[in-house]
Amino acid sequence: MEIYQTNQLRIYNSLSKSKEDFTPIVPGKVGMYVCGPTVYSNVHLGNVRTFLSFDLIYRYLKHLGYKVRYVRNITDAGHLENDADEGEDRIAKKARLEEIEPMEVVQRYTVDFHQVLQRMNFLPPSIEPTATGHIVEQVEIVKAIIAKGLAYVVNGSVYFDVIKYNKEEAYGELSGRDIEAAVHQTRSLDGQSEKKNPQDFALWKKADDRHIMRWPSPWSDGFPGWHLECTAMSTKYLGETFDIHGGGMDLKFPHHECEIAQSKAYKGVEPVRYWMHANMLILNGQKMAKSTGNYILPNELFSGENQLLGRGFSPSTVRFFILQAHYRSVLDFTGPGLEASEKGYVKLMEAFSKIDSIASGDKDTLDIKRWKQQCYAAMNDDFNSPVLIAQLFEAVKYINLLLDQQATLTAATLADFTSTLTVFVLDVLGLQDERKDKRSDTLSGVVDILIDLRNEARDNKDWALSDKIRDQLATLGVQLKDGKEGTTFSLQ
Amino acid sequence: MEIYQTNQLRIYNSLSKSKEDFTPIVPGKVGMYVCGPTVYSNVHLGNVRTFLSFDLIYRYLKHLGYKVRYVRNITDAGHLENDADEGEDRIAKKARLEEIEPMEVVQRYTVDFHQVLQRMNFLPPSIEPTATGHIVEQVEIVKAIIAKGLAYVVNGSVYFDVIKYNKEEAYGELSGRDIEAAVHQTRSLDGQSEKKNPQDFALWKKADDRHIMRWPSPWSDGFPGWHLECTAMSTKYLGETFDIHGGGMDLKFPHHECEIAQSKAYKGVEPVRYWMHANMLILNGQKMAKSTGNYILPNELFSGENQLLGRGFSPSTVRFFILQAHYRSVLDFTGPGLEASEKGYVKLMEAFSKIDSIASGDKDTLDIKRWKQQCYAAMNDDFNSPVLIAQLFEAVKYINLLLDQQATLTAATLADFTSTLTVFVLDVLGLQDERKDKRSDTLSGVVDILIDLRNEARDNKDWALSDKIRDQLATLGVQLKDGKEGTTFSLQ
Repeated sequence: MEIYQTNQLRIYNSLSKSKEDFTPIVPGKVGMYVCGPTVYSNVHLGNVRTFLSFDLIYRYLKHLGYKVRYVRNITDAGHLENDADEGEDRIAKKARLEEIEPMEVVQRYTVDFHQVLQRMNFLPPSIEPTATGHIVEQVEIVKAIIAKGLAYVVNGSVYFDVIKYNKEEAYGELSGRDIEAAVHQTRSLDGQSEKKNPQDFALWKKADDRHIMRWPSPWSDGFPGWHLECTAMSTKYLGETFDIHGGGMDLKFPHHECEIAQSKAYKGVEPVRYWMHANMLILNGQKMAKSTGNYILPNELFSGENQLLGRGFSPSTVRFFILQAHYRSVLDFTGPGLEASEKGYVKLMEAFSKIDSIASGDKDTLDIKRWKQQCYAAMNDDFNSPVLIAQLFEAVKYINLLLDQQATLTAATLADFTSTLTVFVLDVLGLQDERKDKRSDTLSGVVDILIDLRNEARDNKDWALSDKIRDQLATLGVQLKDGKEGTTFSLQ
Repeated sequence: MEIYQTNQLRIYNSLSKSKEDFTPIVPGKVGMYVCGPTVYSNVHLGNVRTFLSFDLIYRYLKHLGYKVRYVRNITDAGHLENDADEGEDRIAKKARLEEIEPMEVVQRYTVDFHQVLQRMNFLPPSIEPTATGHIVEQVEIVKAIIAKGLAYVVNGSVYFDVIKYNKEEAYGELSGRDIEAAVHQTRSLDGQSEKKNPQDFALWKKADDRHIMRWPSPWSDGFPGWHLECTAMSTKYLGETFDIHGGGMDLKFPHHECEIAQSKAYKGVEPVRYWMHANMLILNGQKMAKSTGNYILPNELFSGENQLLGRGFSPSTVRFFILQAHYRSVLDFTGPGLEASEKGYVKLMEAFSKIDSIASGDKDTLDIKRWKQQCYAAMNDDFNSPVLIAQLFEAVKYINLLLDQQATLTAATLADFTSTLTVFVLDVLGLQDERKDKRSDTLSGVVDILIDLRNEARDNKDWALSDKIRDQLATLGVQLKDGKEGTTFSLQ
């Protein structure tokens, strides 16, 4: 029996704006699509927060026993600078500025993206498809939507007819926009636009002469509209209707709204059962975003090379900091907040590392069953990681009580406690045992023993022993330094 | 002035079968294409050797000051099980066996490939394109070759007409095969094949009903022939003629031969200036290959979890072992060989780590200029890494002489020696300073000092001190164990 059979997961659905019981289309299997990065710059911490939310969700779904197909795409073409289908392709612009081939830009930032996520212990998704890898599929969808009469061709470009679509379907249902009102409020098109209505969006854009990234199509040498790739890839790998679609909250409109319209026009069915949106990361009182320059890069955080913080924080600390907020809450990024998380993280992991040295007793004086239920209850309640983490700090108290022999657990209960804690700390939250740092703590501790012995030798005027300790350490690259505050050491 | 302007690189060209002066098409810029992995299984050490050869080449070209565009593809579709265009697609077959989507197979093994290469300190290529990401481009090439009369359509599949091509061009020039003789020797087709001649190869294959990976085309719903992707991607990113094309020696025929034929038929020009082929890795007297089961995985080597070797070897040791053979020589993989490399690697890196503590003197008693020239001469001679490594061991001797003050260098010469050694060790060979292991060696050394002090205490019957040392170490997770052979320790 799988865990999900006794745990009713509830998910906040952005479409219904309410928490709903989660029931996958195919029992035991979950299809999840998450909008990935546009690889034209280094991934910043705000992006990381979004992807981490879905890493947590993926991990918990897997832990519940679901077989999950998790698709997270790479946008490597077609994302124009503004959402009105005008401007320059972001990747092509970066390539022009740096005088390199657009796919070199894609490669550089895809590598960065993967390295950052790997350092932070993300699980790779099941499939990581690219927009340029699905040009054929996108062209086929455009053909189908034109055939349904819901798109029109102008000068080699193809636009989705939102007004016509809206007569049968409800455009704006996800973001809560009233398209009828919008049509009346919007200033009239300036005559230069090819669109019939400002609400229409591009399915295919004809490439102008400068545009390097281009492919042949029945309408022009051009490139697909940004929204189309997600429809093509989610449909191809997850089917016309799938369980979960995720992304950052800023993608609700127009991106996800357009995806819904495209999918319904293409296949005639609602594409997604549960829409999930991760909230923003706030820095200096504003949303963290590349476009405004108000952002911090993960590698700057790890190395400490940034103006905001005086020192570096480990990838697991940053991970823990982000998970201490619920994915649907705004998260305020501050130095003191990060430092507090670091303390909590160290406290949690120190207690966790001692769990194996607890001896079992004759009876249970702690209610581990209830504690375990509360851990699951937190995650079953729309993946509430801060509530789960509060429970893990309860476990820290338990561990200390048990180590101090102020509480006892029977062998069976202790085993259950240990395995549950391990699952939630390592598998679900994805925290890493940073044993390398531990190793260096051990080294400091062992050197400190020798420093104490040397001090005793000096007190006893045993200069031979005192010198021997200093010299032997020096051969190993450990330099002792005697100062007013006592003896310290440095490593070569 | 760039380094390449005073260093004439010579490259063995597989096409001319001789070493030639290297002159790029565009001064100062190099375009290099290397056939990457087919991602249907974990990358084995034989594959790694091929890619490492080109990592070395890429690093040295960059060091010489060339601006290099290095394209290494990922084959994620179209590679049939045998080279005769029959059988099942390798990735689709794996997916069928494991009951997953082919792109999940692709993702799993692409992630493995990247992780192994990252651990071994490979530089990512400039562009890493995929076969499925270039279906449109491949279809366009097939159209062009059909239009030139050099391909024919049968039942929705398209074949390249080798015999007709060979009337104008020389098919087989790279691999040294005489196509005329081959035609007469080959048994006649069995009537089931769609090909006019056995030498013909597929440009496009119609997908049968079971085949999941398929795309629409003018001829059928199908998939491109394996050879076509490399022509499409090299032409797209490097132009119709580019500088260097590399790959494993086993790809000369038919793969590279077919690439040449396709490119000439498509663009009418010789596609590649310098063909480079990395030689085989031999295990148990046979070529290391996935298909025969005679292989070892890099992760098995690192962890020590394999039957051949009793223990693990660090990624840099494995890297050093491979680079100790010239890329065009057969490399025999043996345990003793790897152990010898480990000793050499440790010796080299130990000396290298001490170079900063050398004090400069009044005069030069070592000929650093000549040594430096010989380092460059080795690499300029078709990237001869074993000869370079021999020079680096000369440098180890120099370092020891300098440290023992049996030789001296002036400050300027010492700076040149240091920077040259750093360039060749870290940048060109890509070896890593494995300081983490060094840290754990230090810990062992420091614990050993305490063990000795404790033994002395026990000899003096100072049980208080002896117990204190043991207990304090235990608090740090260092467990002492007294045995017949003396005292050992383990870390928790």
